[in-house]
Amino acid sequence: MRRSSLFLLVVLGICLLALFFLSGAALAADPTGAETLKNNQAAPVDYVWVLVSGFLVFFMQAGFAMVEAGFCRAKNATNLLSKNLIDFVVASLVFFAVGYGFLKGTDAGGFIGLGNWFLHGKAYDVGVYLDFFWQLVFCGTAATIVSGAVAERLKFPAYLIYTFFVSLFIYPVYAHWVWGGGWLAKLPFGAGHVDFAGSGVVHTVGGMVGLAGAMVLGPRFGKYGRDGKPRVIPGHSMALAALGTFILWFGWFGFNPGSTFTAHHLRIAVIAVNTNLAAAAGTMVALLTIYLKTRKWDLGMALNGALGGLVAITAPCAWVEAWAAVVIGAVAGLIIVAGVYFLEARGVDDPVGAVSVHGFNGIWGLLSVGLFADGTYGLYSLEAPYVTGLFYGGGFGQLLAQLTGVVAVAAWAFGLGYILFKVMDLIFGIRVSPEEELQGLDIPEHGTPAYPEFTRHRTLLTG
Amino acid sequence: MRRSSLFLLVVLGICLLALFFLSGAALAADPTGAETLKNNQAAPVDYVWVLVSGFLVFFMQAGFAMVEAGFCRAKNATNLLSKNLIDFVVASLVFFAVGYGFLKGTDAGGFIGLGNWFLHGKAYDVGVYLDFFWQLVFCGTAATIVSGAVAERLKFPAYLIYTFFVSLFIYPVYAHWVWGGGWLAKLPFGAGHVDFAGSGVVHTVGGMVGLAGAMVLGPRFGKYGRDGKPRVIPGHSMALAALGTFILWFGWFGFNPGSTFTAHHLRIAVIAVNTNLAAAAGTMVALLTIYLKTRKWDLGMALNGALGGLVAITAPCAWVEAWAAVVIGAVAGLIIVAGVYFLEARGVDDPVGAVSVHGFNGIWGLLSVGLFADGTYGLYSLEAPYVTGLFYGGGFGQLLAQLTGVVAVAAWAFGLGYILFKVMDLIFGIRVSPEEELQGLDIPEHGTPAYPEFTRHRTLLTG
Amino acid sequence: MRRSSLFLLVVLGICLLALFFLSGAALAADPTGAETLKNNQAAPVDYVWVLVSGFLVFFMQAGFAMVEAGFCRAKNATNLLSKNLIDFVVASLVFFAVGYGFLKGTDAGGFIGLGNWFLHGKAYDVGVYLDFFWQLVFCGTAATIVSGAVAERLKFPAYLIYTFFVSLFIYPVYAHWVWGGGWLAKLPFGAGHVDFAGSGVVHTVGGMVGLAGAMVLGPRFGKYGRDGKPRVIPGHSMALAALGTFILWFGWFGFNPGSTFTAHHLRIAVIAVNTNLAAAAGTMVALLTIYLKTRKWDLGMALNGALGGLVAITAPCAWVEAWAAVVIGAVAGLIIVAGVYFLEARGVDDPVGAVSVHGFNGIWGLLSVGLFADGTYGLYSLEAPYVTGLFYGGGFGQLLAQLTGVVAVAAWAFGLGYILFKVMDLIFGIRVSPEEELQGLDIPEHGTPAYPEFTRHRTLLTG
Repeated sequence: MRRSSLFLLVVLGICLLALFFLSGAALAADPTGAETLKNNQAAPVDYVWVLVSGFLVFFMQAGFAMVEAGFCRAKNATNLLSKNLIDFVVASLVFFAVGYGFLKGTDAGGFIGLGNWFLHGKAYDVGVYLDFFWQLVFCGTAATIVSGAVAERLKFPAYLIYTFFVSLFIYPVYAHWVWGGGWLAKLPFGAGHVDFAGSGVVHTVGGMVGLAGAMVLGPRFGKYGRDGKPRVIPGHSMALAALGTFILWFGWFGFNPGSTFTAHHLRIAVIAVNTNLAAAAGTMVALLTIYLKTRKWDLGMALNGALGGLVAITAPCAWVEAWAAVVIGAVAGLIIVAGVYFLEARGVDDPVGAVSVHGFNGIWGLLSVGLFADGTYGLYSLEAPYVTGLFYGGGFGQLLAQLTGVVAVAAWAFGLGYILFKVMDLIFGIRVSPEEELQGLDIPEHGTPAYPEFTRHRTLLTG
Repeated sequence: MRRSSLFLLVVLGICLLALFFLSGAALAADPTGAETLKNNQAAPVDYVWVLVSGFLVFFMQAGFAMVEAGFCRAKNATNLLSKNLIDFVVASLVFFAVGYGFLKGTDAGGFIGLGNWFLHGKAYDVGVYLDFFWQLVFCGTAATIVSGAVAERLKFPAYLIYTFFVSLFIYPVYAHWVWGGGWLAKLPFGAGHVDFAGSGVVHTVGGMVGLAGAMVLGPRFGKYGRDGKPRVIPGHSMALAALGTFILWFGWFGFNPGSTFTAHHLRIAVIAVNTNLAAAAGTMVALLTIYLKTRKWDLGMALNGALGGLVAITAPCAWVEAWAAVVIGAVAGLIIVAGVYFLEARGVDDPVGAVSVHGFNGIWGLLSVGLFADGTYGLYSLEAPYVTGLFYGGGFGQLLAQLTGVVAVAAWAFGLGYILFKVMDLIFGIRVSPEEELQGLDIPEHGTPAYPEFTRHRTLLTG
Repeated sequence: MRRSSLFLLVVLGICLLALFFLSGAALAADPTGAETLKNNQAAPVDYVWVLVSGFLVFFMQAGFAMVEAGFCRAKNATNLLSKNLIDFVVASLVFFAVGYGFLKGTDAGGFIGLGNWFLHGKAYDVGVYLDFFWQLVFCGTAATIVSGAVAERLKFPAYLIYTFFVSLFIYPVYAHWVWGGGWLAKLPFGAGHVDFAGSGVVHTVGGMVGLAGAMVLGPRFGKYGRDGKPRVIPGHSMALAALGTFILWFGWFGFNPGSTFTAHHLRIAVIAVNTNLAAAAGTMVALLTIYLKTRKWDLGMALNGALGGLVAITAPCAWVEAWAAVVIGAVAGLIIVAGVYFLEARGVDDPVGAVSVHGFNGIWGLLSVGLFADGTYGLYSLEAPYVTGLFYGGGFGQLLAQLTGVVAVAAWAFGLGYILFKVMDLIFGIRVSPEEELQGLDIPEHGTPAYPEFTRHRTLLTG
């Protein structure tokens, strides 16, 4: 194993070097931006808009880390924080070297892009770097979603390998289909499959890979009683979970409005409002639903309701009116509650609800475009073709395009995710040992408990 | 009760639907922003400025949640986080449907606005959506202030109802008086009553409603000893409190400078500097004052000093020079310490100091305009009429206008807040049972303790 | 002592008042920005860019507070939070009154600037206020770095005095040498000593003063066993440490790209990408290095690796290509691990690794400019002279200029820092008593433990 690993690394290294020098053959384009500015005096405000929005999207990494750590037990907190850090790190490096090329390189047969390796050669250009930054923070978001679904039992090295493949191939290729001029974008129904800021591209991809991981892993010890009934395993810090949700909500104001990729579409104001209203409606409906069911004002469900509303509005945010955003978010709140119970009843243990939040509501978001799009805004453009859904006289075309995308993303992400986790599991086993799982992953894998001084839980929960 | 509640909900629903369809009778204005852009090529930078500033103001919700949870006991942390989440959620939905119309609809008699319901019909316009987003995050801030003052004893459903009314009516109507062209804005003294970013509109409203709530509720168990002397009930996490304060300070850079509503007033740089200096001076003076009194470097007081300085500079930030911001902040630091002792000595139990921070310093901020405004900047305008205070030769006119506003906001917010909490208390009782208060609100109301694994405190504090 | 203190305060006050009124003799320049806008219609987007970037840099204060508190023990958390708050507060006030004048006033002999006192008189100008805001948040960052290195044993009043001098003199003077037109900027090698966003000006200054403080203080009780071998003293919350690192990473997107001080250099996109890649590479290499050494995926080291990569890329970020940023970050990751072991083995106890992160990697960042600068971008300008390093045919000139700066910053900051801490130590003793250190600084100095309810650690660690 060791020797073959070394051999693989050497081959990989040679391939990367070859890519690097091949890409360097061409000349740099506009590395300082002087030419770009000369051709477009209004470019600075667009750069500021995209960069600041991208910074906000980056900050969502902190949100995911806090939500996932908060919803899990203290004995795995270091592990979750480490995974949420390292997935963005791996994504940054892999996407920089190759993944971004698969997404935005020259289209090859509608399936994949080729070019821009290492942002070198003619890719050394302010416009390319700007686009790379934007695409990267989205790729990093897709990657980090999975850690929640596989929490408290997946080995850290398996997570490293998963992140490598998701940011190298699974995410970039699907994103190419929708955002890189691939076959889904060119579907002959409606305006083609559309996904404004990535309900499908980012969230359903992450949610479906997470579902695959959770299924391959099986549930945590103690999640199901001897009678087979699911049990609640409370997270260790609602403060972190709430903080993380607020950070995610905040970051989503970059995620959605920033996806215009220009500040010259003043529609960004509508997108911001829609994003917020869907989150609010999702929170409210999830909270009321769980209250009617349990007579408790369940904060965890409310937080997931907010996130579900945000995921759902991500695809339609630019194409709908405010009232529709409220409806879309409200439905998302219902989906959250239903999804959590649905998965739990079927033996899928998703510790933080990532599959419901990102997987199911991502799908709902994609479909909602086909229903509520009101025909005022185009394809990242103020001009026709406009996106129009069923309720605004657009017929079933857009809905069909959206449905096609749903099938494609679910098959691609779940399929490849399942293969990835299954193959890893067969080769080296992706689940920590029962002893490590009971003890928590922090000490065996990382050597550092998250809270060494608040030790009571260690004896309580591992004894 | 049940049946009458249902009846009320049905009537409410019908009214809302009527509003919705009536507003839809008119045509949309500029939902994509193409027209707006054509008429104003420089609009994008203003939209970016207002939106990004608005995102920062939204993020203050996280700050409030952390500060309030941190300053209270762990057994109520889930409850405080839930309240800080749900107030923004309720405000978003209610303000969207109706509240915003009361603020910015067509002025009716100087008292209230009418129109823009549901952002529908001719309100489906990028400019209106932008303004709505901005006004909403301010409304949400006012709403969330109250949770701190009524912490650790107010029932969650009572808080839901409170939030409904504050974002439907109390906040929008007062804001209309100042920012919607209402009677306070048109006072014949000075430049009329002015409040740049809302020391009064947002903070005094929140602080006074909070004071009313705290008075109706009465103090927490254990706040006063058998001898009637107040006792310290320490918060459970200074880390959360400090984090929350930093987040609030950060968010205030959106709150104040963003209130120009345009980036074309380069005065935003002065506003940012003033905001920061007042916060710094408030922190320093509060810390030194409490040190002189107790010989301890009290972090909690320093954090409230920062917030007090920020609240105080909110009204004058655009109209004063840097040195004046330091003085205003320094006085705010004194007010914080004095206010906390003043209220405590009078039997008002405000667990996080919200009344001192937002109520008293909001008033100081309003008055300080009448003293320090230096006559360089106008009414959200680079042109005359300029705002000039007593120390810059403006006479007593502006001070009188500010004083009028202080009386108005205190009467309106405290009065309506008192009625609201009192009526709720008479109908169904707004305070949790003694058993629930001792146990903490988290388990009885929410079913989830915030830190189920750090359990030691539960037996210690509830036994 | 008391009387002499009072006398000193009075003298200081008189000097400050004199400064204030002298500066007020001149007329204000453009306090509203109307003139500035007239002369430069494109100014608003630059103001927005600089302000928003500055807000992000401010937010790094929260990041430092969380990282430092998280990496230390709970019994000192209130103390660390207090120090991280108060250093920015003191810096704000001192830098406003005098320090900024030393940095950006009229150059006197290449050594110091004079003017702009209190932002008064002709400094009451939107451009000056904007620049002040930017310089202040950088000064505050330098100041706050030190608290980590001297954590868990430095008296709070000593920290107050340290902050006073660092923001009054040590930081502004060195910053004047590089950014204020001082002698380092005018070195006749290469393009002069250059430091784009402050690897040296901010981070090495902070790191070297911190090193001096840690050396004067000596190690914490228990850091070294009876055999003289260093022992691990784990921090109390990896969640706070991770959150803080994410916040710092986020804030660095303001720190580096914002340092163009204009959005009209679209190079900001390249800077953002470089910043991110160096952080990622630093994290990855630090994590792998410590894994190879200890077979544990050490989160603390990974977090410091991220910060080390960020510090290192801070000087070169505008002058290098993406692949070079990866290399610079990777080397930074190695330096972090090596630096921590190096200091520990030499008896220097730096509880959070601040010297490695900021001191050593700041130096590496400065030197890396002399190696990797690719000659595409100038001195905060799209025009020549461009900055070109050894690997791009620039010869040894730039490297020599960088080396000169390294010697200067190390001598200046370490030297003055050492004198400052040593003199304070001789006068009143800067280290808390052994009893206070064992008990933790929170209760004796601040009167408030950070987590009064999670009490188990108090008996465990102080008994």
